[in-house]
Amino acid sequence: MRTEEKLNMTMLCDFYELTMANGYLSAGYQDRITYFDAFFRAVPDKGGFAIAAGLEQLIDYIENLHFDEADIEYLRGRKLFSEDFLEYLRNFKFTGDIYAVPEGTPIFPKEPMVTVRAPAIEAQLIETFTLLTLNHQSLIATKANRIVRAANGRAVMEFGSRRAQGTAAAIDGARAAYIAGCVGTACTISDQLYGTPALGTMAHAWVQMFDSEYEAFETYCRLYPTNATLLVDTYNTLKSGIPNAIRAFNEVLKPLGITKCGIRLDSGDIAYLSRKARQMLDEAGWETCTITVSNSLDEYLIRDLWLQDAKIDAFGVGERLITARSEPVFGGVYKLVAVEDEQGNVIPKIKISENVGKITTPHFKKIYRFFGRDTGKAIADYLCVHDETVDDSGTLEIFDPDATWKRKVVYDFEARELMVPIYQHGKLVYERPGLEEIKRYCAEQVDSLWDEVKRFDNPHNYYVDLSQKLYDIKQSLLRENGEKNR
Amino acid sequence: MRTEEKLNMTMLCDFYELTMANGYLSAGYQDRITYFDAFFRAVPDKGGFAIAAGLEQLIDYIENLHFDEADIEYLRGRKLFSEDFLEYLRNFKFTGDIYAVPEGTPIFPKEPMVTVRAPAIEAQLIETFTLLTLNHQSLIATKANRIVRAANGRAVMEFGSRRAQGTAAAIDGARAAYIAGCVGTACTISDQLYGTPALGTMAHAWVQMFDSEYEAFETYCRLYPTNATLLVDTYNTLKSGIPNAIRAFNEVLKPLGITKCGIRLDSGDIAYLSRKARQMLDEAGWETCTITVSNSLDEYLIRDLWLQDAKIDAFGVGERLITARSEPVFGGVYKLVAVEDEQGNVIPKIKISENVGKITTPHFKKIYRFFGRDTGKAIADYLCVHDETVDDSGTLEIFDPDATWKRKVVYDFEARELMVPIYQHGKLVYERPGLEEIKRYCAEQVDSLWDEVKRFDNPHNYYVDLSQKLYDIKQSLLRENGEKNR
Repeated sequence: MRTEEKLNMTMLCDFYELTMANGYLSAGYQDRITYFDAFFRAVPDKGGFAIAAGLEQLIDYIENLHFDEADIEYLRGRKLFSEDFLEYLRNFKFTGDIYAVPEGTPIFPKEPMVTVRAPAIEAQLIETFTLLTLNHQSLIATKANRIVRAANGRAVMEFGSRRAQGTAAAIDGARAAYIAGCVGTACTISDQLYGTPALGTMAHAWVQMFDSEYEAFETYCRLYPTNATLLVDTYNTLKSGIPNAIRAFNEVLKPLGITKCGIRLDSGDIAYLSRKARQMLDEAGWETCTITVSNSLDEYLIRDLWLQDAKIDAFGVGERLITARSEPVFGGVYKLVAVEDEQGNVIPKIKISENVGKITTPHFKKIYRFFGRDTGKAIADYLCVHDETVDDSGTLEIFDPDATWKRKVVYDFEARELMVPIYQHGKLVYERPGLEEIKRYCAEQVDSLWDEVKRFDNPHNYYVDLSQKLYDIKQSLLRENGEKNR
Repeated sequence: MRTEEKLNMTMLCDFYELTMANGYLSAGYQDRITYFDAFFRAVPDKGGFAIAAGLEQLIDYIENLHFDEADIEYLRGRKLFSEDFLEYLRNFKFTGDIYAVPEGTPIFPKEPMVTVRAPAIEAQLIETFTLLTLNHQSLIATKANRIVRAANGRAVMEFGSRRAQGTAAAIDGARAAYIAGCVGTACTISDQLYGTPALGTMAHAWVQMFDSEYEAFETYCRLYPTNATLLVDTYNTLKSGIPNAIRAFNEVLKPLGITKCGIRLDSGDIAYLSRKARQMLDEAGWETCTITVSNSLDEYLIRDLWLQDAKIDAFGVGERLITARSEPVFGGVYKLVAVEDEQGNVIPKIKISENVGKITTPHFKKIYRFFGRDTGKAIADYLCVHDETVDDSGTLEIFDPDATWKRKVVYDFEARELMVPIYQHGKLVYERPGLEEIKRYCAEQVDSLWDEVKRFDNPHNYYVDLSQKLYDIKQSLLRENGEKNR
């Protein structure tokens, strides 16, 4: 693991965080305790759920959070900030609390992924980075999980570094893809940093570099007899590539007793070529040779390949995964939901909007996920005020907050809290799970969803309900605002 | 300018670059001189041209290129690489030549953005990063330029950090957007690193933090009297936000004799609200107050706002710019186009594909752009073999390489070479222009394109032609391959 990449990203904040922070200090609000929720509003690709990711990088960021002298000098040069504020920044560190849904958890719109309780300036300054890391990695994890599900148990490799939107998109994107079920990545540095296995064998240039395709294949097999996946489409897949691959396997691998090998198809009609390739390989006695395919794949094309009876053992997925091409934005937002008065009472706050979907759910909240004790499957999520607890020994009537006549009684369920404490009074209290553990947890949690939530087309709308108390608070704040602006 | 962010990204390479490099060394090909072109195949969003960007970060990367001991150890642990190769990497540096189109240049499909001439291993190892930086920044510059053109002379600010695909997407994306014509960014660290002016005033949280909207506005105006752009949509834009803003301007700014101020609309019906806002501000004597709008804008929505007679002075554009949401992939590729034999002769190489659009243009090439001497406008690009020169004192017949009967005689033209030397024998020979210079150059060069190339719908297909000599070489390689695989 290299650590020097864990840079101080304190200055990666929207400039308005700084103008507001300077203003809070000047208005005497610096110690005012605020509560912010990070949440998203819609699942990309009209999917039934998203996968939370990016918390690890948020923790790295908070651990490194500080303003260098160079940062202070830059800010002074902008001639907008008071010397008091610059002095305040010199000693700045995070002293608040953070609660978060662990990475790998399936999440749903309008429920907090992260809740920050901190003095106003601190909570404000971490907004941009918090959203950036959650949005990016949740986007990629969500997309990768779709692709992995489409692959139906076959391996999916993340191959998109060259088309990623910048270095961190490649490095952290490979991490998010691995959490969500990919078996590895082409991105070497991501393996070195995070332990996402780096995979790959050859590009077309390798084949072109030699006088003949056969010589290129034969050389590769001699060099990497246990790792020989040959790219067969440089000249002509069926007439040249596959016959040369078979010949190289026969000449080099067979005498060594090696049966594990592979070919990769990167262009042309993948479904057709994979069937022909399978047939040619089998007829040559290479039933053990795997077929990997690449070339602008995504979950829809992969699903379609199965309908065409394609013969594929592994998928290399590039640009459409690493950029989440079909919907490349995870619209997470960070909204003030409460403040504390001087007596420490939590005062809920709401953000009204002329776009109804943008109205926030106020207050310092908890999320429970209800699991059926018989099936182990997730039934509903339940948001309540921080001081409420759910008794899961009996029954509970829940209701749709947008259509309160839609009611459901849950019974024989286990209520598990989704958010866990990450920081308490500025101290990291979360024992960070390793990447393999996150990956395993993610697979288990996705398994706990009903198939109806997981399907790509018109998935079932998973219930995210509010407690009666939280619902009443939200309604009363809405009424109050309505009266003010009548 | 901070420099510590200029990290060693040597290990940000696809794993197969390393397996191939190890193979080249073992096959004795390490000194074989190869030529690779980086080019793209289609303009995103069906546009008429793209904007080249990302070269500066390629140079930073090459300058820092080396394998640390930790890198060598990681590779040794993979048990695939020879000790000779690991030793070779220990002393690895780039010794080749790089030619590139300067940042900010309008570019077209299938012409090289970058040509690398280097020993096989070196040229191969830099593939992933070269593509990553060119793809990412060209993508964002191309998108940003579309949005800037739609804004019709009004300011466009890049506001997307929180939705960017990772930290580098935010930081370098802001740089690319600035090159392409944005006036600044919300991303503070990008200003500090690159000098892209960081902009911004307040979020909804600021307004919510105070007991009343008026108090929030009044406090802000007192604090930043010369930088007061007030966000007016927290509660009710027309009934509360704008009246409170006007009151704050009257109470705080007017007595100071300040007339420069602004409001920002971030939700609701932007066209309608901007017209109403303009009217309310003008009636209150605040004709000088600017109106900024944000909320999921892109070039299409902005163009539409003008049709609706919106009254807007500036646009804050977020996720749809920083992710190039409508088409988030710039499909740049890196292909072997030639090798040198032992006598130093350049032997052209071609990559055939069953997808005809993927067939490469072979050889070590030059690009000329022809400008009309009368209009100053760009007429055509002309690819030729490296040892050809164009005489622009007379006339020249050019032809479409895909439809050779489409011919055009150009006359009264100036032929300018597009690619400039960046590295010679591993030494940086390019004097890197400053960001403001790149931005200015970009604006000039976009101006040199005819409006027909710049329009969004069905733009004119700009000519990218091959010299007769280059065309003949390509045809003969195609024929040769066809005969081999008959």
